[in-house]
Amino acid sequence: MLEDRKQELRERHGIPFRITGIATRRLGWIADPDGLDFASVERAPSPAEGREADQKPANVRDWLKAARADVLFEATALNVETGQPAIDHIRAALEHGAHAITANKGPLVHAYRELRDLAAAQGKRFLFESTVMDGVPIFSLFHELPAIHLQGFHGILNSTTNVILSEMENGLSFDESLKKAQALGVAETDATHDIDGWDAAVKTAALITVLMDVPVSLEDIHREGIRELTTNAVRNGRRDGWPFKLVCRAQRVGNGVKASVAPEKVLSSSPMGKISGTSSYIYFETDIFPGLAITEENPGLYATAYGMLADFVRAVS
Amino acid sequence: MLEDRKQELRERHGIPFRITGIATRRLGWIADPDGLDFASVERAPSPAEGREADQKPANVRDWLKAARADVLFEATALNVETGQPAIDHIRAALEHGAHAITANKGPLVHAYRELRDLAAAQGKRFLFESTVMDGVPIFSLFHELPAIHLQGFHGILNSTTNVILSEMENGLSFDESLKKAQALGVAETDATHDIDGWDAAVKTAALITVLMDVPVSLEDIHREGIRELTTNAVRNGRRDGWPFKLVCRAQRVGNGVKASVAPEKVLSSSPMGKISGTSSYIYFETDIFPGLAITEENPGLYATAYGMLADFVRAVS
Repeated sequence: MLEDRKQELRERHGIPFRITGIATRRLGWIADPDGLDFASVERAPSPAEGREADQKPANVRDWLKAARADVLFEATALNVETGQPAIDHIRAALEHGAHAITANKGPLVHAYRELRDLAAAQGKRFLFESTVMDGVPIFSLFHELPAIHLQGFHGILNSTTNVILSEMENGLSFDESLKKAQALGVAETDATHDIDGWDAAVKTAALITVLMDVPVSLEDIHREGIRELTTNAVRNGRRDGWPFKLVCRAQRVGNGVKASVAPEKVLSSSPMGKISGTSSYIYFETDIFPGLAITEENPGLYATAYGMLADFVRAVS
Repeated sequence: MLEDRKQELRERHGIPFRITGIATRRLGWIADPDGLDFASVERAPSPAEGREADQKPANVRDWLKAARADVLFEATALNVETGQPAIDHIRAALEHGAHAITANKGPLVHAYRELRDLAAAQGKRFLFESTVMDGVPIFSLFHELPAIHLQGFHGILNSTTNVILSEMENGLSFDESLKKAQALGVAETDATHDIDGWDAAVKTAALITVLMDVPVSLEDIHREGIRELTTNAVRNGRRDGWPFKLVCRAQRVGNGVKASVAPEKVLSSSPMGKISGTSSYIYFETDIFPGLAITEENPGLYATAYGMLADFVRAVS
């Protein structure tokens, strides 16, 4: 994505850049301040066969230094319980003096305030637009809504469960639907986080933490997945005009927020009833706009990567 | 609105301010660099009875100077043909060295590029978030979507016609529906601009000009109002599940944009079919997000004023 838009970023946004570090489980920490060729690094033999392990940076801090990083793109997998190792990576980047961009929701739930304050103290940006709705600029939107009061929100934020429920409406079993979602590339091999509502709960917690400025832990969110729903129940729901959806909800109550993720029957002609497949939806209730809703229909494959690219432009322009 | 949120703006956003100038048709140009009390100015007798006319600034430039203005809020009525006097006011403010914020769509259609470039040259902001969808940050949203390619959009952007069509569906005549919209405070005394599609066409042109970066004049937009629709046709449309809506459309074609504003029959269960009363809706087609839709449900009375307040925060923070 970055490479695809390299010319446009340079010419239209005045942002020249080069990739000076890559780190993956397979390749380890690779850095070259003069620039790496992404394609050739990807084709490179794994470290055991190739370069000497001891020539390479040993950890994230050495790697950032060796790469002379100005910006870190953090894209490790979600760890629901701890938010690690993403938090350590982001903290290291900010302390090194680089902007930190993540597609990982964990740090928002487990370390948002710390990382936000660290970024401010360092004069760097901590950005995470890809974490919710594939890069639709939800967090930036609220940055553009100063002095507004967000009372609550509801929506459909997990694609895997949405695809599975659609398939079950067509008569497939839960397992068959899951396999189909995996074949489509929507669900991961281990789809537990999606099916049991963890992904949706983490997104809900991230939105509450950042947009409502109320600290919330995952335990505070009532969470039910879709594992208990039978094909019959799902089919009958659709037939009767009240299909099941995995709905995220949050509402201010006193100084806190009441939040849940659970399957709900929604009216088929309602906005949520019409969200199918990989589409997503969120409805914000604010003092100025009683209902402000955003629908993302069938995002392209690059929507999440685009969110990180947009964060990059925000950080460096 | 500004006064309502004065404390919040100062304490939460670090923006202290005072109103140093007010200009209305009745009061003329009033300025006091030490600050004016809005309420007492509003209660003041008209110029003929009160202060000497020659003590007051004679025109917008004198007034900006006398007020030592840092920010201008421009809220004159729309002039479809020329965009004046708003363009002159905004030009004067930018040349004076003030940020210019407008709720008037005319300048976007008649002088966008000039004012944008003038603002850039002066290091000031020219902001206009209130012009479309009552202050929902549509323009800012695209500022947060760098390097995205907008192919087209469609939506419902005029409340007066939407209210009138809803009333006609209930059996009222066109004239009765218009009176009802006026009684509700939605339609102005002279609702010609709304009914004949001018307001929607100007909004469409503004979105094309700013977001698609294609110069377009009002004559380029195919425009039909709702005056020709009979109550019978409108009732039957709703009854048959295909209600009439005044729909704005724009689509890139080659280097240009094809655009229209016209009554269309839309499926009642579609997103546009569900937009009733003062709600509005826009659907953007982009390369990254094939469908990104925003719905504004029943905005509050202060939604437009809020848009100007948000522009103010954007300009000065």
